[in-house]
Amino acid sequence: MNRPVYISRQVLHYENNRISEVDDWIVTEYPITIMLDQQEFATLVCTPEYLEDLVIGFLASEGVINSYKDIKDILIVDTTGRAYVDTHNVNKFNQMFHSKRYVTSCCGKSRQSFYFYSDAQTAKKIDSTEFKISIEDCFRLMQLLQQSSKIFQNTGGVHNAALCDKNGIVVSRMDIGRHNALDKIYGYCLKHSITLDDKIMVFSGRISSEVLLKVAKIGCGIVLSKSAPTELALQLAEELGITTVGFIRNQSLNVYTKPERIDNVI
Amino acid sequence: MNRPVYISRQVLHYENNRISEVDDWIVTEYPITIMLDQQEFATLVCTPEYLEDLVIGFLASEGVINSYKDIKDILIVDTTGRAYVDTHNVNKFNQMFHSKRYVTSCCGKSRQSFYFYSDAQTAKKIDSTEFKISIEDCFRLMQLLQQSSKIFQNTGGVHNAALCDKNGIVVSRMDIGRHNALDKIYGYCLKHSITLDDKIMVFSGRISSEVLLKVAKIGCGIVLSKSAPTELALQLAEELGITTVGFIRNQSLNVYTKPERIDNVI
Repeated sequence: MNRPVYISRQVLHYENNRISEVDDWIVTEYPITIMLDQQEFATLVCTPEYLEDLVIGFLASEGVINSYKDIKDILIVDTTGRAYVDTHNVNKFNQMFHSKRYVTSCCGKSRQSFYFYSDAQTAKKIDSTEFKISIEDCFRLMQLLQQSSKIFQNTGGVHNAALCDKNGIVVSRMDIGRHNALDKIYGYCLKHSITLDDKIMVFSGRISSEVLLKVAKIGCGIVLSKSAPTELALQLAEELGITTVGFIRNQSLNVYTKPERIDNVI
Repeated sequence: MNRPVYISRQVLHYENNRISEVDDWIVTEYPITIMLDQQEFATLVCTPEYLEDLVIGFLASEGVINSYKDIKDILIVDTTGRAYVDTHNVNKFNQMFHSKRYVTSCCGKSRQSFYFYSDAQTAKKIDSTEFKISIEDCFRLMQLLQQSSKIFQNTGGVHNAALCDKNGIVVSRMDIGRHNALDKIYGYCLKHSITLDDKIMVFSGRISSEVLLKVAKIGCGIVLSKSAPTELALQLAEELGITTVGFIRNQSLNVYTKPERIDNVI
């Protein structure tokens, strides 16, 4: 892939009562259509880097593949914006139910917060609370995320995600789409068989239900964010046993769910 | 609909080396599944208010309906999160091509920036530049948007959109999903036959390609944002004749496309 993630463009800039022509950096957006075993499956609009990881992570997240080994062949064609994926043992059932509403068999029973069929199948519950981090780790890892994403802060508003261990960042990715950044990390983890039970996901944006589900699918027990969670995300975090820490700013933060994984909080 | 758009929740708050239990406001998220003529069509995850407008705006945006009159009946069922829509004259072709990739007949020909079939069918080109606004209007309308959305700023990160004329806000909506806020406005416009040729869309978030397309579908010639546009959004803005103004902060802004509609800029 040789597409740039941002380009320079002339804009009319107004400041101090004056108009001038200036060069500005603008982030790019690139639509990529996944052709899964010769059938159109989905179109993702994304920042054009790490596209193979993105496609692998997305397919795993949708429950279509269970591991990297399920992929026979993958080819990204830059000029047409298509990703051709051939699979072994693809889960045809999940493929059929792609983006279909999940219907619980009985009201009020378990997993009632799930709304997509594939989420209910693929999001894993994380029970162990053996791996713990400190409040100081939360601040330090958030700072590392912010430092690593400095270049893109100029163009405004891309989402940054970093998979960390206690020593620092293992892999970080950015994307104009918040879930894409997480899918890129998921794809990387599957390809490189990264163990997740000692990892923390650090994220720049809001913890929506979709973000929380991605974190659970990846298999991370702790998610840190600069921003706020939604109520549905917190319900899911409780059902899935995930520690959510939000509003990490200056020297304050909130622990929303599963505080057992944060030292000395309870 | 009696669902709250935010709720109070106890969280563990850390500040000044102390942990305390405090009440915090958390925004809600609500999945709503559109049953279109008895068939599952799509699930939107949204802020639970103005759901009827949201569904109408979304269906129009997807090219399934062309006007409010195409809807025979609409029923939102709160308990199950379903919207039942019966239509007249529904566009079965666009329904079939829902979220399918748009393929141009020939490389390099018109509308090459479109990636979804429905967008290429429904986004309208706006040629007239008769309606103009001033730089001062840009600052004033952005300030009005920010004032109108104060309540929700506390909970962090919802998207706000306001359809304005030169006198001020005509209708404003917020949502955790950026396009939902615009679809809610679109539904309102269709229901109330709002004329668009003297209106401006003011938006809190990034102008992505998806946002730009929604603005074009609604039929607004000018979009103002506090944030940055993407390059694909600017390509689409040029093809569709839309004036984009971004990074409206303090007393500076950028005009990216179609500056003819901003007084004294060129």
